[in-house]
Amino acid sequence: MIETPYLLFLGDAPDQLAAKVAQGIRDWRPDNAVGQFRMEGCKADLGLPDMTLTEARAAGAKTLVVGVANRGGVISKDWKKVLVTALEEGFDLASGLHNLLRNEEDLAAVARATGRALHDVRVPEVEYPIANGVPRSGKRCLAVGTDCSVGKMYTALAMDAEMKARGLKSSFRATGQTGILITGEGVPLDAVVADFMAGAVEWLTPDNDDDHWDMIEGQGSLFHVSYSGVTMALIHGGAPDALILSHEPTRPHMRGLPGYGMPSLEALRDLALPVARIANPKAEVVGISINTAALSEDEALSHLADVEKRMGLPAVDPFRQGAGRLCDALEAL
Amino acid sequence: MIETPYLLFLGDAPDQLAAKVAQGIRDWRPDNAVGQFRMEGCKADLGLPDMTLTEARAAGAKTLVVGVANRGGVISKDWKKVLVTALEEGFDLASGLHNLLRNEEDLAAVARATGRALHDVRVPEVEYPIANGVPRSGKRCLAVGTDCSVGKMYTALAMDAEMKARGLKSSFRATGQTGILITGEGVPLDAVVADFMAGAVEWLTPDNDDDHWDMIEGQGSLFHVSYSGVTMALIHGGAPDALILSHEPTRPHMRGLPGYGMPSLEALRDLALPVARIANPKAEVVGISINTAALSEDEALSHLADVEKRMGLPAVDPFRQGAGRLCDALEAL
Repeated sequence: MIETPYLLFLGDAPDQLAAKVAQGIRDWRPDNAVGQFRMEGCKADLGLPDMTLTEARAAGAKTLVVGVANRGGVISKDWKKVLVTALEEGFDLASGLHNLLRNEEDLAAVARATGRALHDVRVPEVEYPIANGVPRSGKRCLAVGTDCSVGKMYTALAMDAEMKARGLKSSFRATGQTGILITGEGVPLDAVVADFMAGAVEWLTPDNDDDHWDMIEGQGSLFHVSYSGVTMALIHGGAPDALILSHEPTRPHMRGLPGYGMPSLEALRDLALPVARIANPKAEVVGISINTAALSEDEALSHLADVEKRMGLPAVDPFRQGAGRLCDALEAL
Repeated sequence: MIETPYLLFLGDAPDQLAAKVAQGIRDWRPDNAVGQFRMEGCKADLGLPDMTLTEARAAGAKTLVVGVANRGGVISKDWKKVLVTALEEGFDLASGLHNLLRNEEDLAAVARATGRALHDVRVPEVEYPIANGVPRSGKRCLAVGTDCSVGKMYTALAMDAEMKARGLKSSFRATGQTGILITGEGVPLDAVVADFMAGAVEWLTPDNDDDHWDMIEGQGSLFHVSYSGVTMALIHGGAPDALILSHEPTRPHMRGLPGYGMPSLEALRDLALPVARIANPKAEVVGISINTAALSEDEALSHLADVEKRMGLPAVDPFRQGAGRLCDALEAL
């Protein structure tokens, strides 16, 4: 559990995309972000107040979150100066970088000396149980994708926000580093040891009120041979009541796998639903989330109408249209 | 890679079943087992020569393998004495126990001082890559089960032995601790970090001669919600050409999951085959392996005939009948 609110560290981000973790926090948990910290040459801007470390502490910030990708796989000297000073000024640090903060000897030493925490959200900090498959109270929704990186996290966050706006009970359950940094907690599923994957997801989505929805962040794809085991464990550990099919319609092949064509939404439905019903016989596919970023507005609307007709399910791009109709489908379940 | 041959440590095994790891080595790699080491009160007997450590070293043994389960989750003082002496006499140690040898300070100290190796086969010792999904030369066979512990490892070992007896090229590829101890190498798949599971299986089953078969040890079941992610990664990393369906016909429910009924062989085929074809479009289900240990000879033969007729595939119990007909099916592919 990472202490909030945050000061978002953008470093010397070469462009806005490099700061997409920080952008996610700003978009989805604005209350968690008191300001941004930018170094000379930073090309990203979240539209938050620029603050010094001291100003951010005075504004209540408890954790400095590395919200930007590093370059060349190293934490630079310039970054280090800021991170060390932040620890000395009373911040915890949180990061989803592959380079772990804890493995940087100078940071680890200062953290020990100052009693501050270093949160490397790629590394599990809990001993998860083996899944027991026992049915849980409350309801759970999971987006499953035809591929990786098709908008599953965005879909879950948008549905969670919409459910809350309707006054309904909902929790976004993070399963990846960006999601964990956004909410301050979760399970870094891709870093969990194989035997404990499904158990980690059960742990993440415990018994809850009957009218409460967990919006579980999806990972990978049953059709992506590199990561399908993670997706499988997510489906069987999460035991979702509702599945959302997620897709990106212009991708020529599976991400990182040039030899693998993209499956159809029908193929995804026909594999994911029987798999989900092993863990939860009541599971239903309730809607479709299409990432239409590569299409014009007209193309997008026309494509969504085609998909909706073909599949007989509400099909939306939650970024263009909001997640309202997907939440209607949950409420109708 | 564990150095062979072995002296098999049976400790104070309370019964034959407790020594099933040693039994597996003795059954499947008799050339690896020069003798057995039994302590006072040992109730297991592999029919191998009883040897002292010194006698076994003289007979060429290089590694003392803990071939027995420990009691109460601790490595007892009596065991320790033998293990320490073995290191001093020049043995490496190998174990699949949950208690790691390396975590026992006295053993670790003696191993350092004597330059001997401690092999804890539950712990991965390789940094596996992320799976790339690129097709590989050679052929691969994988047994997939309706449940855990239905005889998948036995099936793969029996098929490997039969292929070799026919003069064909075959390798048993171990994915669990017993299999690794039997062959001296493999991947402890259930202990691999999620993102690298499929890559570990690709690493285990690399390009090979076109007429070479890898007999991959199966794990878990697509229908077992605790471990299905491991099975999924095994299918997509292994990219098998041939699937064997494995089943135990008298089990009332899934192992360890009282609320979960056993799937039918048809359900297993209908899920496993499309999943396998994502990674290898030529995948076929070629045969069925039934564990009939709980049936009489007559019941077993009658059950196998029924299954064979129902499924239209050769159905055998490799323990009762050998794996000949399953290997015929591979050769016919």
